[in-house]
Amino acid sequence: MSEQNPLDLPEGDPFGPHNLPYGVFSPAGSATGSATGSAPGAAPGSAASDGRRVGVRIGSYVLDAGAAAAALGSPYVSLLAQPTLGPLLAAGRRTWSDVRRALTAWVTVPAHRDAVRPLLHPLSDVTLHLPFEVADYVDFYASEHHASNLGRMFRPDAPTPLTPNWKHLPIGYHGRSGTVVVSGTDVVRPTGQRKTPADTAPVFGPSTKLDIEAEVGFVVGAPSTLGTPVPLTDFREHVFGLCLLNDWSARDLQAWEYVPLGPFLGKSFATSVSAWITPLEALDAARVAPPARTEPLLPYLDDSAESVADEPGGYDLRITVSLNGHVISEPPFSTVYWTAAQQLTHMTVNGASLRTGDLYGSGTVSGPSPEQFGSLIELTWNGRDPLELPDGKRTFLEDGDVVTMTAWAPGPGGTRVGLGEVTGRIAATRG
Amino acid sequence: MSEQNPLDLPEGDPFGPHNLPYGVFSPAGSATGSATGSAPGAAPGSAASDGRRVGVRIGSYVLDAGAAAAALGSPYVSLLAQPTLGPLLAAGRRTWSDVRRALTAWVTVPAHRDAVRPLLHPLSDVTLHLPFEVADYVDFYASEHHASNLGRMFRPDAPTPLTPNWKHLPIGYHGRSGTVVVSGTDVVRPTGQRKTPADTAPVFGPSTKLDIEAEVGFVVGAPSTLGTPVPLTDFREHVFGLCLLNDWSARDLQAWEYVPLGPFLGKSFATSVSAWITPLEALDAARVAPPARTEPLLPYLDDSAESVADEPGGYDLRITVSLNGHVISEPPFSTVYWTAAQQLTHMTVNGASLRTGDLYGSGTVSGPSPEQFGSLIELTWNGRDPLELPDGKRTFLEDGDVVTMTAWAPGPGGTRVGLGEVTGRIAATRG
Repeated sequence: MSEQNPLDLPEGDPFGPHNLPYGVFSPAGSATGSATGSAPGAAPGSAASDGRRVGVRIGSYVLDAGAAAAALGSPYVSLLAQPTLGPLLAAGRRTWSDVRRALTAWVTVPAHRDAVRPLLHPLSDVTLHLPFEVADYVDFYASEHHASNLGRMFRPDAPTPLTPNWKHLPIGYHGRSGTVVVSGTDVVRPTGQRKTPADTAPVFGPSTKLDIEAEVGFVVGAPSTLGTPVPLTDFREHVFGLCLLNDWSARDLQAWEYVPLGPFLGKSFATSVSAWITPLEALDAARVAPPARTEPLLPYLDDSAESVADEPGGYDLRITVSLNGHVISEPPFSTVYWTAAQQLTHMTVNGASLRTGDLYGSGTVSGPSPEQFGSLIELTWNGRDPLELPDGKRTFLEDGDVVTMTAWAPGPGGTRVGLGEVTGRIAATRG
Repeated sequence: MSEQNPLDLPEGDPFGPHNLPYGVFSPAGSATGSATGSAPGAAPGSAASDGRRVGVRIGSYVLDAGAAAAALGSPYVSLLAQPTLGPLLAAGRRTWSDVRRALTAWVTVPAHRDAVRPLLHPLSDVTLHLPFEVADYVDFYASEHHASNLGRMFRPDAPTPLTPNWKHLPIGYHGRSGTVVVSGTDVVRPTGQRKTPADTAPVFGPSTKLDIEAEVGFVVGAPSTLGTPVPLTDFREHVFGLCLLNDWSARDLQAWEYVPLGPFLGKSFATSVSAWITPLEALDAARVAPPARTEPLLPYLDDSAESVADEPGGYDLRITVSLNGHVISEPPFSTVYWTAAQQLTHMTVNGASLRTGDLYGSGTVSGPSPEQFGSLIELTWNGRDPLELPDGKRTFLEDGDVVTMTAWAPGPGGTRVGLGEVTGRIAATRG
């Protein structure tokens, strides 16, 4: 053909054939809902009715993966011609590799490239959906710099900023899976109770300390058996890939409610994830050793053993956080103390089972330097030091603010692997 | 017919036509799995392959509700001829009433009774399953007596046993929905970290303080919209029914992990629910006013307003807890401070949405007297005062122990409404 093939990407494109993240999209004209059509509680069948299907991002296009599989007679059509990533996630590591190998061929081998070319949709024309049904959502607290910053702010008189358990186990808690939303979904400012020491009684109203948390989310594919822990070495048998995650937080609601049972309404109103899930296989060149451990670990969490250490557990993901288009932070994921494998193992050591679609967040990623802090409460030191932005000062988020996170990781041969962005706009409280 | 009809129940049967709880069962011979076949992470299609279907309990029989609907030409066949309660739950309050009215007729009107008689299965012949897919699971902490007991035990020097927020909001947290199991499922003793003040480092091993929590679980049917709170008056538009719930707890794991983000592995290994969901409509005669409020409530939680108070928010459920067949406690649900309606409203006041299948527990139900405490940690005062049972002393649970909870509520005209039992046996940690 004479036209340029969209698969002829500019050199260095972070969404080249070395990346190939997965998502779910509706082609132009087929979506009956809005970008927020993937709202929890949608009636059964609504997914199918808006034409949603598995897509793979290549450059600034989306390949209709199920249609490509059908066109090329691939045996993976049953996994890919679906309105959700669920069946692919459930298929397990060997199949994930095989499907990825097939997809790579479809976008690189000339004959296949011609065959799939009509099945490419410009990204700007499609609607992206939450790519899988979130089973359980767990949020960790795995960045030492983040946990130390919060300890200094809230327990200034404690002997150390970290609680005594922090270096012995990855602290985590369950969040609300039903309010995980896809990038682009508006976030309605939550309402609730707050009470500062100065208040004689709780005050009710829209949150005045609405914050972000820059995180990486890990997506479980293959399930595990109830009653049987998953060892560190099985991490990649169960975890399919990762995404960017913004764990929106209402600091004022959280402060009043969280003793003794942990965060609840301060977190449960929304958690945004990127529309693209990057398979772990695309990130092999980004694997790095985690920070040196400063306390001995119990054997089930010890990743210094030879069998584990040859697959380093950290990932060198460079995150950028922007507020209304201005970069406010660049948190380095490689500085996070607890690895995703340790988190998975800890989460199951009591026998808790994994399900396809389980999602767990790393917790706020904060580096050692102030320009690497992953939340506004750290960046402004709980509002004491406002950010000076071109469009005004900010302590916490105002209605209309747009927060966007992007990230990239080193890829093979000096390339970059782009992660899908996660973005959200703050909408005013309803009513 | 000359034989006695199983629908001719003995007078006073707590599972008479005034009750009619819903469940999901497999008839004898059709189940391919065991009683634990409803394990999380089961492959898609496994539900259908073991013949599971919606059942309604009547006396000691189960009516195949979908088959009855088909036999009688009911329009509700599409809701009832299903392997899960999901479609019925999603149908909403008006339909719940209509279906219940139809079912009542099928088991009471002579012509219908004859028609459905062949569709009755003895309870002892069927396998009962988790009756719906649990979406989000939230556990509250709504019993003042329970929270006060724990405060006295763990914060003996605090000015009051309750935390300052306790009387202002129903404290809750998200639990693991993927490990909610049906009554009868063995509970494998969890393993994990614990550290007492006497230990210099954390110790790893099977929990030595495995406990129960006697609770009532509420099942959400109709979903709500993200960003829009659900008011107190809409409780019965969303909540379909209730069940008994045992929130198994490993007190030693919980004590070491829970500061600052709340319980995690100390709870997430298993939560058992009764196989039968009692519709709220069956419990109208059991409604009672909740305990007097001793602190003023913010308007969104205030259930003293006339529009709310004519539907009292408490339920007079009398729970019995047995350990290896010996009654160890009789917690009265009517003493719980926060109502299920207040819990639902609080859970959504920040805009968090509800999904069909959301489950929330009341928290441990403890009455004011020691023989009404709903957990072993209270009954034995954290192991100080062992229970003297005919088969030996108990502080916390031992392998092989069987815990069973039953309950009943006042029904119309002096009847009793029985709740389905929730039972579980402790299995040894897997080697």
